[in-house]
Amino acid sequence: MKKFTLIGSGLVGSLLSIYLSKRGYKVSMYERRPDLRTNRISAGRSINLALSDRGWRGLEKVGIADEIRKVALPMKGRIMHDINSQLSYQPYGKEGQAIYSVSRGGLNCVLMDLAEKQGVEIFFNERCDGVDLKKGNAIFENFETQKKTEVHADYLFATDGAGSAARLQLQLSTDRFQYSQQYLEHGYKELSIPPTPDGDFAMDPTALHIWPRGSFMLIALPNMDKSFTCTLFFPFDGENSFNALDTEEKMMTFFTKMFPDAVSLMPTLKTDYFENPACSLGIIRCFPWSYEDKLLLVGDAAHAIVPFYGQGMNCGFEDCVVLDQLMDAHGEDWKTIFHEFEVSRKPDSDAIADLAVANFIEMRDKVGQKEFLLQKKIEAWFSTKYPEKWIPLYTMVTFSPDIRYSEALREGQRQESIMKKVMALDNIESKWDSEEVENLMLELLNG
Amino acid sequence: MKKFTLIGSGLVGSLLSIYLSKRGYKVSMYERRPDLRTNRISAGRSINLALSDRGWRGLEKVGIADEIRKVALPMKGRIMHDINSQLSYQPYGKEGQAIYSVSRGGLNCVLMDLAEKQGVEIFFNERCDGVDLKKGNAIFENFETQKKTEVHADYLFATDGAGSAARLQLQLSTDRFQYSQQYLEHGYKELSIPPTPDGDFAMDPTALHIWPRGSFMLIALPNMDKSFTCTLFFPFDGENSFNALDTEEKMMTFFTKMFPDAVSLMPTLKTDYFENPACSLGIIRCFPWSYEDKLLLVGDAAHAIVPFYGQGMNCGFEDCVVLDQLMDAHGEDWKTIFHEFEVSRKPDSDAIADLAVANFIEMRDKVGQKEFLLQKKIEAWFSTKYPEKWIPLYTMVTFSPDIRYSEALREGQRQESIMKKVMALDNIESKWDSEEVENLMLELLNG
Repeated sequence: MKKFTLIGSGLVGSLLSIYLSKRGYKVSMYERRPDLRTNRISAGRSINLALSDRGWRGLEKVGIADEIRKVALPMKGRIMHDINSQLSYQPYGKEGQAIYSVSRGGLNCVLMDLAEKQGVEIFFNERCDGVDLKKGNAIFENFETQKKTEVHADYLFATDGAGSAARLQLQLSTDRFQYSQQYLEHGYKELSIPPTPDGDFAMDPTALHIWPRGSFMLIALPNMDKSFTCTLFFPFDGENSFNALDTEEKMMTFFTKMFPDAVSLMPTLKTDYFENPACSLGIIRCFPWSYEDKLLLVGDAAHAIVPFYGQGMNCGFEDCVVLDQLMDAHGEDWKTIFHEFEVSRKPDSDAIADLAVANFIEMRDKVGQKEFLLQKKIEAWFSTKYPEKWIPLYTMVTFSPDIRYSEALREGQRQESIMKKVMALDNIESKWDSEEVENLMLELLNG
Repeated sequence: MKKFTLIGSGLVGSLLSIYLSKRGYKVSMYERRPDLRTNRISAGRSINLALSDRGWRGLEKVGIADEIRKVALPMKGRIMHDINSQLSYQPYGKEGQAIYSVSRGGLNCVLMDLAEKQGVEIFFNERCDGVDLKKGNAIFENFETQKKTEVHADYLFATDGAGSAARLQLQLSTDRFQYSQQYLEHGYKELSIPPTPDGDFAMDPTALHIWPRGSFMLIALPNMDKSFTCTLFFPFDGENSFNALDTEEKMMTFFTKMFPDAVSLMPTLKTDYFENPACSLGIIRCFPWSYEDKLLLVGDAAHAIVPFYGQGMNCGFEDCVVLDQLMDAHGEDWKTIFHEFEVSRKPDSDAIADLAVANFIEMRDKVGQKEFLLQKKIEAWFSTKYPEKWIPLYTMVTFSPDIRYSEALREGQRQESIMKKVMALDNIESKWDSEEVENLMLELLNG
């Protein structure tokens, strides 16, 4: 029987291993870290994630969506906190639509349990040191024993994330490998809001909270234990930056001024701020994603993105769904499967990479502006009247897994150019739901 | 005394070592290849290069321009060969201006000789395996003895070219290293035109020859031995491509149709075509170029570009000139020297990278078009009348070392938008040197 080896048992690796073993293949997975299920998750990694429709579809196809739904918290919209602690609300979609806060570690543990139940063998503490592309071998070094193992596989899947060792091998050993790693000037740091003394959520747990402040922002997502995990997205350098806020006094003065209502809910702010690392935000693009029929990059290893559309994991799970469809279509013709995968997924992963960067500006700046909120209100109103003519961009990306990311990006750009004209109308704020606006939008849509 | 170590004794490394040793520093240089001066140059690397004013300035400052001038062949313009073997000519600049064909290997040998005369120690067959950034140590492995050496340096300069091992270390060991490697769909292959039976050049040796064919091209530069080195720039894949021309018959049919006058001068075409490799054309961009005051990337290691503007070596030599000016300004403050170097050179190297890609389209396609040649004629005419108002882009890049590449790019874009309007005039071909055109250009320049 053909042997499949996966490098990395993170979210995408674990899910992909389930897809493969359900097809009857023999699958082994090698993971750099110790077993999450018996060791505490390492600090500094994002603790919760927003699962949405593309991700759910990936879980549903292997029958584990219901199990995850029990430990997922629906967030129906955004609650914006302004500098005077005034709140405003923007729904993400229609009634019944939500994104779901899930624990990264918890989800990963469930996926690994299920993988093992399906017969997947997982080896921990095995760091990939390189790949022999021609032979299809992966070289691992065990952290505890320092033993090196060269594992032969008929098919190697690199699910080892943004820092992929397999991708580095393609960079070093193949000609004309297109590759870029870009980093934002901002980094992120995780902070926390514990439950209230009487054991309840300290804020509304049915929304994602944002403190938009123009060039930076704080966000918070609810956890099952009734705490919130907050993330500060902040420049590394400059006047207001991680490097500038280097004493407790400077940091507290800044937070108290910028996030007054949040500070009062953060008893461990000082410890969190000074002990948790400031992590970088990178975008990885490359091509090709495969080496003959030996190796395929999947998930962040092929296309790491910034987290601002909440789509990193969802996109990786969608990779698994697309691969599964290609296995249906092409059986054991792995060269074709790998090639069709990279050719079809590349434009979509490039699109969500761009959308994610654009959404950072939306979240940290635009959601705090009246004009932007009005625009979104007009789009929602028009979309309700003409659901076939107008699906808001956020809805296409988040709640419409049948629309490809690349289509969503294109359609979103068309919508934006229409809305620019609508928002330029005199007194748009008073006539936003008028027949005039409706007719103009219909006309522009046909133009 | 402080120790300087250079990784790579190519053109830029050798020149930089001379600059440093002239200042009295102790300089060692480690080179991956055997000594060029006692071994034949490896096949497949470009054999001749076009030296122009920025490069000459770099050589003049260390007093070796005159020695090189003796073995350099001036090329005053381009001779275009059309598909019917008809020739047309376009001068590069004004009377007396030329670019110079020099042998890469020959120039490198002269530079290494001079470096050793200045006291630079050169170690050959030493491949850099990595850099210990914190300690400022470079690790080398000797090809012949397999011995590994860890060399300590107070200051490390990475002049190890597009495939720089030191740059890879920055990518692997530092956070937020911006990096991209992009490759064109075209590659290049070297071919040759020997001297005629009576020992003369087979074509005019005072020009660079181009066979522009739209999506691909052949070029030829003269050598001191009265041969020409030809380079075919051609897609790797597709209908007309290296991969498609895989038999002698297909290749000869194609060449005879496309380059009839060249084929008749190429007795070794079959051997050259099938034995010489098709090499890739890559663009490397990264930032930062330094690690504290320990390591600095210089030349292609920091900013490899495609060869179509003939500026790769010239830009690298200009790096040495700029570094020399910064050493004048900042003495032993290497942290400042490194930082100012990367900040000031980055926009210029980005500009020449873009200009070089644009010039590929000019060379392979536009120079074969009447309209383009007319536009260049108008620019030359106007520039002669108003030399202070209009310096043609090619002149700014090639013959004006006081104009930064980034300024040349900006000014070139402005000129292009003006020329677009000029070329749109009715009957421009008959009134190209009229007062009307002159006044329009003056007006657009002031607008």
